[in-house]
Amino acid sequence: MIDSQAVFNYLQGLQSKIVEAIELVDGKNFLQDSWQRPEGGGGTSCMLENGNVFERAGVGFSHVIGNKLPPAASVAHPEAAGRPWEAMGVSLVFHPRNPYIPTVHMNVRFFVAKAPKKDSLDSLDLRAKQGASEADAQIAQILQQEESDETNIGTAPKGDEDIWWFGGGMDLTPYYGFEEDCVHFHRTNKEALAPFGNDYYTQFKKSCDDYFYLKHRKEPRGIGGIFFDDFHALGFEQSFAMMKAVGDAFLNAYLPIAQRRKETPYGERERDFQAYRRGRYVEFNLVFDRGTLFGLQSNGRTESILLSMPPIVKWRYDWKPEAGSPEAKLYTDFLIDKDWV
Amino acid sequence: MIDSQAVFNYLQGLQSKIVEAIELVDGKNFLQDSWQRPEGGGGTSCMLENGNVFERAGVGFSHVIGNKLPPAASVAHPEAAGRPWEAMGVSLVFHPRNPYIPTVHMNVRFFVAKAPKKDSLDSLDLRAKQGASEADAQIAQILQQEESDETNIGTAPKGDEDIWWFGGGMDLTPYYGFEEDCVHFHRTNKEALAPFGNDYYTQFKKSCDDYFYLKHRKEPRGIGGIFFDDFHALGFEQSFAMMKAVGDAFLNAYLPIAQRRKETPYGERERDFQAYRRGRYVEFNLVFDRGTLFGLQSNGRTESILLSMPPIVKWRYDWKPEAGSPEAKLYTDFLIDKDWV
Repeated sequence: MIDSQAVFNYLQGLQSKIVEAIELVDGKNFLQDSWQRPEGGGGTSCMLENGNVFERAGVGFSHVIGNKLPPAASVAHPEAAGRPWEAMGVSLVFHPRNPYIPTVHMNVRFFVAKAPKKDSLDSLDLRAKQGASEADAQIAQILQQEESDETNIGTAPKGDEDIWWFGGGMDLTPYYGFEEDCVHFHRTNKEALAPFGNDYYTQFKKSCDDYFYLKHRKEPRGIGGIFFDDFHALGFEQSFAMMKAVGDAFLNAYLPIAQRRKETPYGERERDFQAYRRGRYVEFNLVFDRGTLFGLQSNGRTESILLSMPPIVKWRYDWKPEAGSPEAKLYTDFLIDKDWV
Repeated sequence: MIDSQAVFNYLQGLQSKIVEAIELVDGKNFLQDSWQRPEGGGGTSCMLENGNVFERAGVGFSHVIGNKLPPAASVAHPEAAGRPWEAMGVSLVFHPRNPYIPTVHMNVRFFVAKAPKKDSLDSLDLRAKQGASEADAQIAQILQQEESDETNIGTAPKGDEDIWWFGGGMDLTPYYGFEEDCVHFHRTNKEALAPFGNDYYTQFKKSCDDYFYLKHRKEPRGIGGIFFDDFHALGFEQSFAMMKAVGDAFLNAYLPIAQRRKETPYGERERDFQAYRRGRYVEFNLVFDRGTLFGLQSNGRTESILLSMPPIVKWRYDWKPEAGSPEAKLYTDFLIDKDWV
């Protein structure tokens, strides 16, 4: 038996916990912006702009419901078409000011298409009144990834059961890389997943490397992390526990890196390289990220979807770092296929 | 009888003419970067970065050939599938430094799928050796727009004839608008098209408004201009003449505006608004522009495709200009559906 309310409560709590921790580190408070989605559901976007440590940091929570899942959205689960459905998630991107602190992204999400016989839509509606369009983006990501076989895990439920799954992950995008930071980030993720099965970290790391890849640049977005979707292999309780383990691991994975690098002196050169590299983040999110694209093309809440955009970005024609420079090191030593743990 | 060589010569000359004129205005020279496309063809990307008047200005020429047009690329002309084909174009985007000068985009292009009997591929190959991947973008734009009925003009050729068409247009994106600039830009376009038919300006202005629209913002990209595609209604000579008229009108349409505004004093506030609004340009080009997207997703030459990206861009959460401010005036008086002439 699934418990959507428990996931809802966890995700709202996770957003609050992360926002509070980042406010402590930064010294500046987030703007908290709640919104409703006319079609059902809503969310809260928390934004910290022009902070001391973070130049732009967004943490979005969203919860979206619908009465009928569109057939196009249920390719991998055709039996889910037409069912009442619900999607919820927390998604964040932090763009630090100091170029020695990496940019980070984390997302955890839950999707349910209710069994046709069960009469549990009312409870969905109730929650929906509390609080989507970054939601739209997240749902799109959830739904569209259904179409991909590679990250599907587990077996299809029977026609009279709820169809549900968890998804999520986190990935790190340094400007000036430090091996110990990459090892720490990956190790924290590996340890978070270890109680649930020995293979998950390896499997989810590969999915992350595959997904966060800029084909037109032949470059990974960063040094990776973990990425999973359509996860229900462990049953509801343990699958939920795994998603919680990932969500709970985020601050441990990222904050020590931010703390360690935030006083590192930097100048115009480093800021310039950071702004240039942030262009890659924009290119990935606007050209390749399924959730972002679907959200923007389908009447999502634009400002919540684009909380991932960097505060200042530069483009420069055919720029390449000088061989052997600290900037070149990013490409040669970090944006590579590597086992960090 | 079509004359691809004449179009090729015109387009190369147009690129040179525009580059020379802009160098005179700016005082700084373009970098000229020629490249080959392994699959056939090539191009020259001219970039001016960090100039006196233009912060980033790119003018690309490209010429791409192929032996077999893919079926997916010839939806509107299924008889063209498998034919040898050729595409060429000039595409430019100028991002001025002074926020009182608008950003501008212009593109003119030509596409041919050769009749199967004719043995004229050799001449294509010869030219191809001279000089694609912004080409890819342009071709994609050409090809994909084939799928749209709205801008298709004229009747389909017979199976044993060359299939060809012209496309192009220009559009203006102000930060601080001036009615006289908008009127001048549109009037110049209207006058360029007038010798070819009374309706073309009206028709192409509407296509431009429809195409350069950011659905996720419910905002036009700027104050429009003209846009046409799949144009062959006047026969080769006159259709070519019309494309030339558009290409030749560009400097007249834009330079007087740049000259008139380039000494207008501005400060941090205006630069900031310009950087914020440039975010819309990035969003349009990376999310909606067919040529850019197809090029990036299909192994085009990234740096040539992205010569349209602004030099410095800012994103800010849910920002709105103060009512009655000069920034608000852009939205209320310029980013609207309006007959400028």
